[in-house]
Amino acid sequence: MRRHLLMVITLVALLALASFAAAADPLPSWNEGQAKRAIADFVKRVTTAGGADFVPVAERIAVFDNDGTLWVEKPMYVQLAFALDRVKALAPQHPEWKDKQPFKAALEDDLKAVAAGGEHALLELVMATHAGMTTDAFAQIVTNWLATAEHPRFNRPYTDLVYQPMLELLAYLRANGFKIYIVSGGGIEFMRPWTERIYGIPPEQVVGSSIKTRFELSEGKPVLVRLPEINFIDDKAGKPVGIHQHIGRRPIAAFGNSDGDLQMLQWTAAGNGLRFALIVHHTDSEREWAYDRQSHVGRLDKAFDEAKANGWTLVDMMKDWKVIYPFQQE
Amino acid sequence: MRRHLLMVITLVALLALASFAAAADPLPSWNEGQAKRAIADFVKRVTTAGGADFVPVAERIAVFDNDGTLWVEKPMYVQLAFALDRVKALAPQHPEWKDKQPFKAALEDDLKAVAAGGEHALLELVMATHAGMTTDAFAQIVTNWLATAEHPRFNRPYTDLVYQPMLELLAYLRANGFKIYIVSGGGIEFMRPWTERIYGIPPEQVVGSSIKTRFELSEGKPVLVRLPEINFIDDKAGKPVGIHQHIGRRPIAAFGNSDGDLQMLQWTAAGNGLRFALIVHHTDSEREWAYDRQSHVGRLDKAFDEAKANGWTLVDMMKDWKVIYPFQQE
Repeated sequence: MRRHLLMVITLVALLALASFAAAADPLPSWNEGQAKRAIADFVKRVTTAGGADFVPVAERIAVFDNDGTLWVEKPMYVQLAFALDRVKALAPQHPEWKDKQPFKAALEDDLKAVAAGGEHALLELVMATHAGMTTDAFAQIVTNWLATAEHPRFNRPYTDLVYQPMLELLAYLRANGFKIYIVSGGGIEFMRPWTERIYGIPPEQVVGSSIKTRFELSEGKPVLVRLPEINFIDDKAGKPVGIHQHIGRRPIAAFGNSDGDLQMLQWTAAGNGLRFALIVHHTDSEREWAYDRQSHVGRLDKAFDEAKANGWTLVDMMKDWKVIYPFQQE
Repeated sequence: MRRHLLMVITLVALLALASFAAAADPLPSWNEGQAKRAIADFVKRVTTAGGADFVPVAERIAVFDNDGTLWVEKPMYVQLAFALDRVKALAPQHPEWKDKQPFKAALEDDLKAVAAGGEHALLELVMATHAGMTTDAFAQIVTNWLATAEHPRFNRPYTDLVYQPMLELLAYLRANGFKIYIVSGGGIEFMRPWTERIYGIPPEQVVGSSIKTRFELSEGKPVLVRLPEINFIDDKAGKPVGIHQHIGRRPIAAFGNSDGDLQMLQWTAAGNGLRFALIVHHTDSEREWAYDRQSHVGRLDKAFDEAKANGWTLVDMMKDWKVIYPFQQE
């Protein structure tokens, strides 16, 4: 009798757990609305065996931009903050920088003067801070910097400033058999040291801009040395090129936030079968930032028009997201 | 009674199956010997939880050269045979090729004259046959060619001429949690259309040489057009660079057959913890080919010396392999 009772209790508990699991919302930080419905609808259709839109697991490739899509990109790209900090850290070894632009501007935190130097100035800063060491040494520099640097507005590590709703989206897609890649204009080696820990995305699923490296034997030990020479710019029309180079098949879903993602979204959306394209629109000036057509960082203009014309999913950060950052959760 | 008998029979059958599965040799085409023992020992050590050499699944990355390591590379690289066939197929659209080297030599099957043109001649042939179309179109051209082309000695499709012992090794490593990449001097887009079907290696796990591509809107449809410009040569010192660019972490096992694989083997072997490096030595002039230090294709000279000096595993094809190709199995 007692044994029977135990069995019944166990069964009831199991049933309760199962129904709880089925009812649990995989996207709890998303408000009910069109964006959330569109995501759930897409996932359901491509994962329903026998359905017209079913996609085998091996082909469930999703690509995500990073800056402004998965983590904060204001007031400046995190990688630019890193470069400026590195200029300061390296300044003692470069006394000539005190009088030489764009280094002088960087040392004086004169962002306007840095910006005035245009792309060439930025390139100089990147090469001076990202090249000249081994790949292992650079990964360590990035890791050390992220452990101590703080975002100027939130006074927290940059890796705290990832979007909670997007973390849930990554987990939801993974649970449904998706293989997730980052495809970012940012440096591939600036992202790889931390994307697995923060996003669950391993190094081999990160695509980004890069400088060249050279294989050398350093005192008999093989190393890869980072060279001050651009290898690949993974932005705009470069994104489909980077996707094809690294993945070799077309994604079925793409997520971005700016004109830098337009061609990646076009390339993804133009594939055969059901495709999903989503743009995060920064509309929340209180909890985060509000910017689109006029912004220098993360400008959303052409891609905004295309999203509307093509029925891509637009996320209104203010309306669609209950929280922005994980630390804001109750 | 009858039901009980059935249960007993089922149980016995299940137990027999289980013990058979446990005893089954995962490398049946490998003769007992040092190479086979070294492979099994390495796999056991890195997969034994709690052991000194244990490696988490996420870090079990293995890299394989393709030509001469996974499939035949004599009498010429398969991709060269492809290029020569493509020159013939495209000749009607290029009447000028009849009188122009290296195309004239290719059309006349004069391999000596092609070789006399050196690297520049080869590059011209590659660009004329591998560029100028979309990535989708090129993949289709490769697929169509492989469906009809035959190896001149064995009169079989080239994809039949993969090494059975290496197929077993791929399956064995996969069963032990390894993620397997091809890292080949051959064209990345020449391999991707068939490596999943033949080796079980998906496109995103193929690293190779490449030409540049450009994103374009062709009548509103996004395409990637292949350009007659080298992007990356994934050979010799290029292999660790390609590995780092695509994978972003160091492999724990590397498999090659020639000096083109030396730096990949060095890079892998120099990592922390237990590492495995293996070279396939072509010693079987009857069933396949015998070549090493003097060969133009697949020269094994410096890497041969390094293998001996560093205790890397050397596979003697004639002695270590029971069969070479799948179709030779009883």
